[in-house]
Amino acid sequence: MNYINIQEIDSLQEWVKEAIAIKKNPLQHKSLGENKTLGMLFFNPSLRTRLSTQKAALNLGMNVMVMNFTNEGWTLEFEDGAIMNQGASEHIKEAAQVVSQYCDIIAIRAFAGLTDKEKDNAETVLSGFLKYATVPIVNMESATGHPLQSLADAITMEEHKTAHRPKVVLSWAPHPKALPQAVANSFVQMMQLQEADFVITHPEGYELNPEITKDSKIEYDQNKAFENADFIYTKNWSNYKEYGKVTNLDPNWTVTAEKMKLTNNAKFMHCLPVRRNVIVADEVIDSANSIVIEQANNRTYAAQLVLQKILKDGK
Amino acid sequence: MNYINIQEIDSLQEWVKEAIAIKKNPLQHKSLGENKTLGMLFFNPSLRTRLSTQKAALNLGMNVMVMNFTNEGWTLEFEDGAIMNQGASEHIKEAAQVVSQYCDIIAIRAFAGLTDKEKDNAETVLSGFLKYATVPIVNMESATGHPLQSLADAITMEEHKTAHRPKVVLSWAPHPKALPQAVANSFVQMMQLQEADFVITHPEGYELNPEITKDSKIEYDQNKAFENADFIYTKNWSNYKEYGKVTNLDPNWTVTAEKMKLTNNAKFMHCLPVRRNVIVADEVIDSANSIVIEQANNRTYAAQLVLQKILKDGK
Amino acid sequence: MNYINIQEIDSLQEWVKEAIAIKKNPLQHKSLGENKTLGMLFFNPSLRTRLSTQKAALNLGMNVMVMNFTNEGWTLEFEDGAIMNQGASEHIKEAAQVVSQYCDIIAIRAFAGLTDKEKDNAETVLSGFLKYATVPIVNMESATGHPLQSLADAITMEEHKTAHRPKVVLSWAPHPKALPQAVANSFVQMMQLQEADFVITHPEGYELNPEITKDSKIEYDQNKAFENADFIYTKNWSNYKEYGKVTNLDPNWTVTAEKMKLTNNAKFMHCLPVRRNVIVADEVIDSANSIVIEQANNRTYAAQLVLQKILKDGK
Repeated sequence: MNYINIQEIDSLQEWVKEAIAIKKNPLQHKSLGENKTLGMLFFNPSLRTRLSTQKAALNLGMNVMVMNFTNEGWTLEFEDGAIMNQGASEHIKEAAQVVSQYCDIIAIRAFAGLTDKEKDNAETVLSGFLKYATVPIVNMESATGHPLQSLADAITMEEHKTAHRPKVVLSWAPHPKALPQAVANSFVQMMQLQEADFVITHPEGYELNPEITKDSKIEYDQNKAFENADFIYTKNWSNYKEYGKVTNLDPNWTVTAEKMKLTNNAKFMHCLPVRRNVIVADEVIDSANSIVIEQANNRTYAAQLVLQKILKDGK
Repeated sequence: MNYINIQEIDSLQEWVKEAIAIKKNPLQHKSLGENKTLGMLFFNPSLRTRLSTQKAALNLGMNVMVMNFTNEGWTLEFEDGAIMNQGASEHIKEAAQVVSQYCDIIAIRAFAGLTDKEKDNAETVLSGFLKYATVPIVNMESATGHPLQSLADAITMEEHKTAHRPKVVLSWAPHPKALPQAVANSFVQMMQLQEADFVITHPEGYELNPEITKDSKIEYDQNKAFENADFIYTKNWSNYKEYGKVTNLDPNWTVTAEKMKLTNNAKFMHCLPVRRNVIVADEVIDSANSIVIEQANNRTYAAQLVLQKILKDGK
Repeated sequence: MNYINIQEIDSLQEWVKEAIAIKKNPLQHKSLGENKTLGMLFFNPSLRTRLSTQKAALNLGMNVMVMNFTNEGWTLEFEDGAIMNQGASEHIKEAAQVVSQYCDIIAIRAFAGLTDKEKDNAETVLSGFLKYATVPIVNMESATGHPLQSLADAITMEEHKTAHRPKVVLSWAPHPKALPQAVANSFVQMMQLQEADFVITHPEGYELNPEITKDSKIEYDQNKAFENADFIYTKNWSNYKEYGKVTNLDPNWTVTAEKMKLTNNAKFMHCLPVRRNVIVADEVIDSANSIVIEQANNRTYAAQLVLQKILKDGK
């Protein structure tokens, strides 16, 4: 069993329930991971994912080994048949098979490069490990998805749900740097597994990959999208059509208290790290309706659920 | 309970006694830290502090998770109300709250920048974590203090004390690079908690922050200061008045065997790393009177005492 | 007991037998390393060595602490009597003594610089730690040797040996960058402890240090060397005479299927990472005769045997 994409979850509701049970008693399965090793491979920086996934493994009694590829200047080759006389010192074929021998589960972070859409969509790094590794793989944010984040988001929304069918808005917001679409993609896919009135709002031209959004509703008027919303999930992503470009920095898309007034007293969500007063005004993220810190906390239990399922699957 | 400043210690003598007891039996409280996690956050390089604090946590049965902010290129924003459209990707408000959810204790290293005295004196990083973290904080050297070092120094001095009230000299020495005042500051504050004849010696103009030195005796003549000393604690710091500048490289301040002859067969101390034959001559640091290696060893027990007190405090 | 050089092994055959026993039951001595700490010091990047040595320590129940000197920008001074007013912030005398106080075993990786033959042959870093450390030292690849690799190689060859006295060929192959001779050196020394028909093949001028090769047979015709071989161990090294230079990039030395046909159905070996289609053709490394992944796996058991022997030695 791997954990690559949130779409693979058989029953999201069941998973969320199990994660909430883990949260109540995180050390319940402390012996499950005994003498098992989680290898965490980072091709990009990480704070929350690094610490929460490690914490999840420790809660299960696992050992953790970390390899930071970027800091080490270790470059992998992913192309079949490549004549490796350039920068890359090792082929994914060897790297994946070798690391599989030292670890019981491999977790990988490898962001989109945002220069070559096709390569990013092919998930070069993650696919390479999936193809050649001989142990289960966990996605700690890949080029196109961040399913541990979306699972944590689903847990957090369940903890804050009200009686009725909720209205959930994924709202783009401006950001000075080009960011991947991964978090937004996985959030959309997670919402497609939920009963909800789901709306995506962003400036025209900032459409996500249509193969991911499918028939999810898109509303270009942010104010209209916010009306009666129960959850506002904000996230920047760079342009998908003009791939990896920042073509819009419009501060009118920043989430403000005024805009939140249009909602049904909505909870404010963001995966963090967040640029204050660019993505969201202080007044919103500091308000009682902001649940971003709880989201981050649930990252531990999302990761723990995934590791636990993989460990049980292997027994 | 936090451990931010050596001045906060209620009874230094009591603490030193407890640390020496820990040193005799370091694994005595191996179960105290079970299922507890120490998060070590480094904004600057570290060898001794990294390994000794980690060792202390392991002796207590704790888990350790390490985050190197600098290597990761992760920059935090500390200003309230900042419009975060520049380099910083995350505000301390979120970072501190989030990490608090994954760790039971957070230890932080964040040196002085030595360009902005006011900002350094405000202890931007440490204060930010203190304000927003929801778990105890341990100072692994901040802009203005290094209380784990001074506690280790106090332990080491206790182990080498003679019958009489000792004369202790903190002596500045030259160094090619601009170094923070943190170690010197904490040593001064620690000595102010001790019964001793304490003298600070440095070139004129190299006065430490007077709010820290208070009425501690300053002697500009190094030779005179060394007379009859029982402990020579040597350390470079950059100019505090001409903030962060190196205005003196006078090799006459290097601690030599000749100068040590002026003392009462004094022990030589330094926090390490030390520049040989710049700060201190080989003949002194290699002599039987040098106790720098023991000082470094006591870093483990200083850290262990602090972690132990925090863990017990939380029970 | 240290583990610096494969030549120090009293009985290689005995060691290989013990390692294979460990492989069958790696957790058998889980309590041997309890409350013992392995300090891993990296002056160079590492993937296999980092993870396999850590895994070996975990299998023995040890704690592991890692220090990446390069990433930390921590430079050591190795010269006696140096006036340390340049880049180096700490002398090996202090560093080695201090780290010895926090660790029960110190493992070190410090590659050849390849600019100063004398300095590399003096094994500056490793020798410095050997001289001043007060705990056992393990070589995780030094300037001139990689004995954990060669021990793993010996284990792998034992697992694939056939009835007769094997013919073993160490073959140089081209590589775009200047690489150390360490792996080749240790392989040669390991073969000198074995019963085998051992041949080294490389272009004229690429002779290894004659003090290491001694009377090992050298054959400049690669095809001739390959005839009837049972094991082909391929590895690039930079020129030893024109020290650290790449004076030959001849693609005719790449190991191809055609060349492998000259052998006695030989197993293909390489320490990894390997440059595909430069060192070896895909068709060879992807063939059933390639045992490179097993070699990497045996790194864990080689390291575990060494750590186990050191731990037992200290009891």
